[in-house]
Amino acid sequence: MSDYYSQEGHGPYQMIDIGRLQLAEGGVLEHCELAVATHGTLNADKSNAILVLTWYSGTSKIMEQVYIGPGRALDPTKYFIIVVNQIGSGLSTSPHNAKGAQAGPNFPKVRIEDDVQAQHRLLTEHFGIQRLALVTGGSMGAQQTYEWAVRFPDMVQRAAPIAGTACNTEHDFQFAETLNEAITTDPGFKGGHYGSPAEVAAGLKRQAKLWTVMGWSTEFFRLNRHKALGFDSVQAFVDGFMTGYFAPMDPNDLLCMAWKWQRGDVSRNTGGDRVKALGRVKARMFVMPISSDMFFPPSDAEQEQKLVPGSEFRPIRTVDGHLGLFGTDPDAIAQIDSHLKELLALSV
Amino acid sequence: MSDYYSQEGHGPYQMIDIGRLQLAEGGVLEHCELAVATHGTLNADKSNAILVLTWYSGTSKIMEQVYIGPGRALDPTKYFIIVVNQIGSGLSTSPHNAKGAQAGPNFPKVRIEDDVQAQHRLLTEHFGIQRLALVTGGSMGAQQTYEWAVRFPDMVQRAAPIAGTACNTEHDFQFAETLNEAITTDPGFKGGHYGSPAEVAAGLKRQAKLWTVMGWSTEFFRLNRHKALGFDSVQAFVDGFMTGYFAPMDPNDLLCMAWKWQRGDVSRNTGGDRVKALGRVKARMFVMPISSDMFFPPSDAEQEQKLVPGSEFRPIRTVDGHLGLFGTDPDAIAQIDSHLKELLALSV
Repeated sequence: MSDYYSQEGHGPYQMIDIGRLQLAEGGVLEHCELAVATHGTLNADKSNAILVLTWYSGTSKIMEQVYIGPGRALDPTKYFIIVVNQIGSGLSTSPHNAKGAQAGPNFPKVRIEDDVQAQHRLLTEHFGIQRLALVTGGSMGAQQTYEWAVRFPDMVQRAAPIAGTACNTEHDFQFAETLNEAITTDPGFKGGHYGSPAEVAAGLKRQAKLWTVMGWSTEFFRLNRHKALGFDSVQAFVDGFMTGYFAPMDPNDLLCMAWKWQRGDVSRNTGGDRVKALGRVKARMFVMPISSDMFFPPSDAEQEQKLVPGSEFRPIRTVDGHLGLFGTDPDAIAQIDSHLKELLALSV
Repeated sequence: MSDYYSQEGHGPYQMIDIGRLQLAEGGVLEHCELAVATHGTLNADKSNAILVLTWYSGTSKIMEQVYIGPGRALDPTKYFIIVVNQIGSGLSTSPHNAKGAQAGPNFPKVRIEDDVQAQHRLLTEHFGIQRLALVTGGSMGAQQTYEWAVRFPDMVQRAAPIAGTACNTEHDFQFAETLNEAITTDPGFKGGHYGSPAEVAAGLKRQAKLWTVMGWSTEFFRLNRHKALGFDSVQAFVDGFMTGYFAPMDPNDLLCMAWKWQRGDVSRNTGGDRVKALGRVKARMFVMPISSDMFFPPSDAEQEQKLVPGSEFRPIRTVDGHLGLFGTDPDAIAQIDSHLKELLALSV
């Protein structure tokens, strides 16, 4: 058991049991617990709620650190901001903290829509919220954002999917598959029955290398952005930053999230009809890909944006690629903030 | 021993022993044999020779099939076209066909400059050629092209590096490293002491998946270019085309080539001074990156092009990415042909 997933590293958050969650793939989580961090205060008419969702490997902590604060778009002095860690994140119910028959590699398959169902119950039953001023998130957080806007169109007033898509592409599926295989082919993985992430260190390091190649961009390295982050060489960046980032994470948790990521698809709401699915959206939506993203590229995002009524295409210009989501380029974060402020100012 | 590397699959070519080759890293190939395919006839003053170089995993056969023919830029009715398979290609002296103390994983480390030295000896001593109307090649063929233009500036009249760089980037080094690790982490690889490529099938398939992700482009898949090539899904494309391509290849040969690729660097000619190295070029040079290339991107190529006196930047516009080199997009090949014709028409 890793002690990476803790209040010390990622808190404060509260664990909220939303009860029995029937999963799309047929499994059941008898006591689905969501790790939830809130910022600000819900107003009297419950109209100032913002839902923030998390990405693969990320937790509510980085969303707080990079995106939330007074004066920011996600301003806790104005809004009640609810950051929900996704199932499998390591904080919410996840393979590594599941007990008994669902522990570790026996954790049931979860879909993006299961997360959204769980979050919906959390919001409506726990918080009594019936509408959301904004739903946003990056990468898998964008996938959840799209699912929210399509599945509960009357509840989502504004939506901002950042660096993610509504229907995952086959290319992206393959990329995620290479990440999975980096882990599963490590002899220390033992079909998911490892003793600790340290036993899968080699696989996690290979995953870190794949993220190095695809997560940033060729220009990021050519312009020595890794040096600006404090590393003399790309190799030092791989060994330090990237490997250090993934090393403590639970491999089964990562696989659980990746399985969801690979299969994110809002057209499951409409019998496979993507046009119809995205046509359901009533939210004011800004679609915000990252210009240099190598696997959720603007070209894929723009195709979907065109199918969302009244939406706008708002690419974030940076050489930092997908992992610019981490906040490495302050200008990119300023762009996101600016777009989110504009979106929040739109009447609905 | 694989029977993939044969006259049946890749011929006709002749094996030419260029003798003892001292390697930059300290090893020696006592009898370096180069697999050479020629097209056309050397004219009386030996002024019509074109040298064509090969990429990672490629042989002289694909260069012949995609780039050479009457009416093409590389026209065997006008030029004497010499296609030299690189050391480690599987046809020329390579780990899998080396004997005794240098066999398989014990093959010495080879550099791009060793290839170019070997090719120089082939041209001058075997063919009696003292100047080249053109040197060209894609990917690692581009790396060799740059090395030729920098190392033997008085011999190269024109040069066209396609989809490759003079100094390999750190990002590209990491990408190639993931390819290597796909192979070396397969338990069947056994430190290079496998019995046949089939025993490393899983690793070679993982390599094929990595190439699927990085070798083409996200737009290639979004626009269903893989379907145009006859595959219903990306998975079918991975299982059929990509895995089928790599499955018969020798893992130690691939690792030999990748080691060279990772370390390609013309500044080794000038004590690490890239500006000085590229400033040595006397050839008329067209630098021809592929617009959608994910690891030899135009942005990297253009930085180098600006350092080559009198050179021109001639990107090839296609969504087929790096592996557009395979000739999958006829329009991209037509662009290459057009640029090469223009280059060949330039007086020197």
